Amino acid sequence: MQFFKVKTVEETFALIEGNIPAIKQTEVRVLEEALHYILAEPVIAKENVPSFDRSTVDGYAVRAKDTYGSSESMPGFLTVTGEVKMGEVPTAKAGPGKAVYVPTGGMLPSGSDSVIMIEHCEEVDTLLNTYKQIAPGENVIRAGEDIREGETLLTAGTKLRPQELGALASLGVATVTVFRKLKVGYLSSGDEIVPYQTETLAEGQIRDINYLTISGLASEWNVDVLYGGIVRDDFEEFKQKARELYQHVDCLILSGGSSVGAKDYTTDVIQSLGDPGVFVHGISIKPGKPTILAMAGGKPVIGLPGHPASAMIIFKLFGEQILRKLKGERMERKLERVFARITKNIPSSPGRSDYIRVRLFEKEGEWWAEPIIGKSGLITTLVKSDGIVEISSEKEGISQGDYVPVISSR
Amino acid sequence: MQFFKVKTVEETFALIEGNIPAIKQTEVRVLEEALHYILAEPVIAKENVPSFDRSTVDGYAVRAKDTYGSSESMPGFLTVTGEVKMGEVPTAKAGPGKAVYVPTGGMLPSGSDSVIMIEHCEEVDTLLNTYKQIAPGENVIRAGEDIREGETLLTAGTKLRPQELGALASLGVATVTVFRKLKVGYLSSGDEIVPYQTETLAEGQIRDINYLTISGLASEWNVDVLYGGIVRDDFEEFKQKARELYQHVDCLILSGGSSVGAKDYTTDVIQSLGDPGVFVHGISIKPGKPTILAMAGGKPVIGLPGHPASAMIIFKLFGEQILRKLKGERMERKLERVFARITKNIPSSPGRSDYIRVRLFEKEGEWWAEPIIGKSGLITTLVKSDGIVEISSEKEGISQGDYVPVISSR
Repeated sequence: MQFFKVKTVEETFALIEGNIPAIKQTEVRVLEEALHYILAEPVIAKENVPSFDRSTVDGYAVRAKDTYGSSESMPGFLTVTGEVKMGEVPTAKAGPGKAVYVPTGGMLPSGSDSVIMIEHCEEVDTLLNTYKQIAPGENVIRAGEDIREGETLLTAGTKLRPQELGALASLGVATVTVFRKLKVGYLSSGDEIVPYQTETLAEGQIRDINYLTISGLASEWNVDVLYGGIVRDDFEEFKQKARELYQHVDCLILSGGSSVGAKDYTTDVIQSLGDPGVFVHGISIKPGKPTILAMAGGKPVIGLPGHPASAMIIFKLFGEQILRKLKGERMERKLERVFARITKNIPSSPGRSDYIRVRLFEKEGEWWAEPIIGKSGLITTLVKSDGIVEISSEKEGISQGDYVPVISSR
Repeated sequence: MQFFKVKTVEETFALIEGNIPAIKQTEVRVLEEALHYILAEPVIAKENVPSFDRSTVDGYAVRAKDTYGSSESMPGFLTVTGEVKMGEVPTAKAGPGKAVYVPTGGMLPSGSDSVIMIEHCEEVDTLLNTYKQIAPGENVIRAGEDIREGETLLTAGTKLRPQELGALASLGVATVTVFRKLKVGYLSSGDEIVPYQTETLAEGQIRDINYLTISGLASEWNVDVLYGGIVRDDFEEFKQKARELYQHVDCLILSGGSSVGAKDYTTDVIQSLGDPGVFVHGISIKPGKPTILAMAGGKPVIGLPGHPASAMIIFKLFGEQILRKLKGERMERKLERVFARITKNIPSSPGRSDYIRVRLFEKEGEWWAEPIIGKSGLITTLVKSDGIVEISSEKEGISQGDYVPVISSR
């Protein structure tokens, strides 16, 4: 096997960026069923939004110049000629000396260029007293002011959040072309691993924790997870089960046994799945060093360390980024971080990135991050944690009060 | 109708806390299908985790005292008596002068109290040279050190994140009692509102944006959304459609028309659904003042303002909190915020809470929040935003560089 140099965290992210293409298959979905999907094609506006000049307040549509000089002590006077109804084209005409009542969202009648709020005027019979002067365009959204016909509203690679769905709906775009949902396969390996449902453990056995944590994290990314079960530390069995699952998925995750022997199997199994094969074998990171990343026949394969805490941290950092690339989403991973101040000094080795589980609490308008004490194998430290602090590789540690990035796990 | 005083944001949260109970119905789910559900009962550990003393490294199980005085220049010597296999009870015995190879996660053989890492020793034939002294318990997780039998692992009201599922799996808890999934009904009203699929708008018409934004936001909370369609500004029709939908859901959301007439209908329709009725009618907030919150026959009813941006902000603040309470989750809403520094001065009126849409960017290890310029009715300002900044009611504004809380919408 090829010799691999341990990669830094930064190198690993760059390799993911360079090696993982978006899946090819797209599909057309109606908006109600497109939440959190990724646009595969840009959306161009085919009409103006709004399609007509609208009032943003309850008030009277007027010509702004008719209000000039109006004040509380010296009101102006206009004639009310009618009322605009929601969803209808105004029949009343505005124009010099005229005012038409218009509700919020209502269409401006022709002849008017602004709306005076009801708080700033008073209707007495058919006379409107105006107590304030307003500017042309005041309290009005003009046709096309929100979205202009021909404009690119959303680019390919955009994640469809509720607000993007709203913007599409406003344009009458009823369907979108998105990358189809990913299928992710998960396979556990290790002689000591037993199904999590096992009621009584024999000595030395451990339940399959990683299946639940890793499939849970993957599920949060709008993917389907296929469980391949647990394989023993046997090369042929491992290879066969991995190949089987690999056929049916877009991305394969293997949670390696943690023994030295099992680690070697994982690498060999991954190399057997297809070319070009492994591109990261070992990361300069704590915890999670024995991580393997590969591309096999166009599909990413992730070999996670066996420890539950390490596996979760590695998956949150690199696995999620691989899924994001694979599903066609533009990279914006930094947005998931918060910044917090650390409560105590933590030493670390330069050249290695360290990740520390923390509890977050608020003090005087800032987040503080308190490291959770406990050995790395403890699942309870994960339950107590709100996130993980990153100490990047160029640092020799962090000092009490320093601002640190926290990847939240809330 | 009863007279209502406009409530502050803080009063509104307190009223939600006091008025919204968790739903009564619970169900038993297997762990694979319990992600993001809320525990309805505490989980007590029925066994120790780990169930045996485990090594946290690859190394040799020894008695710590046999390594005392060992160093690079003056190694100690032990006899290797065998090897521990993963998932098996060790047959090799440790004890005075003895060392047994043990992989990460392997069970400690009797007679040993610690593990010396392979990096700190060297096996030559059956002799182990130890280059470092270690302490009792070093590199070992003791039985029950992670979770102790009889301990409350998770309390009722806990949201099951991936790490909680992992902790449950480690204990062999295969099923959990959770609050069942909520059904949320959504109904739009307004003569001007037409289905979002409408290809060509008549003058004055607007597509139903709020249905997609609000049902999208609700869906992110692991609830099912039932769409009741669009009703015209007609009291009897509105009441009938609302009552119909109300029968089938745990929480009803009405997106009011924005005209003055429609607003009155919404309140009357809500009051007609059941007692005790409206408890918030108007909030001292910008945008979103005309918000209505009610409890009708044990079910919360939310009357949102008609403007898309206002409706989204109100739902993110209060709607999500109502869903959280209703689904039985303990309140920890603050955790969804990040703190950022504001890029410019923003004035605000004391006594009113203001919410400003912002774009977040990172500069020198901190988040900065840049207000998005645009009138409140513009859906594109939502698409450009990463979150909303809160200017709380006691403030008269915020100054450039101030740290402000941001509710993220990523």
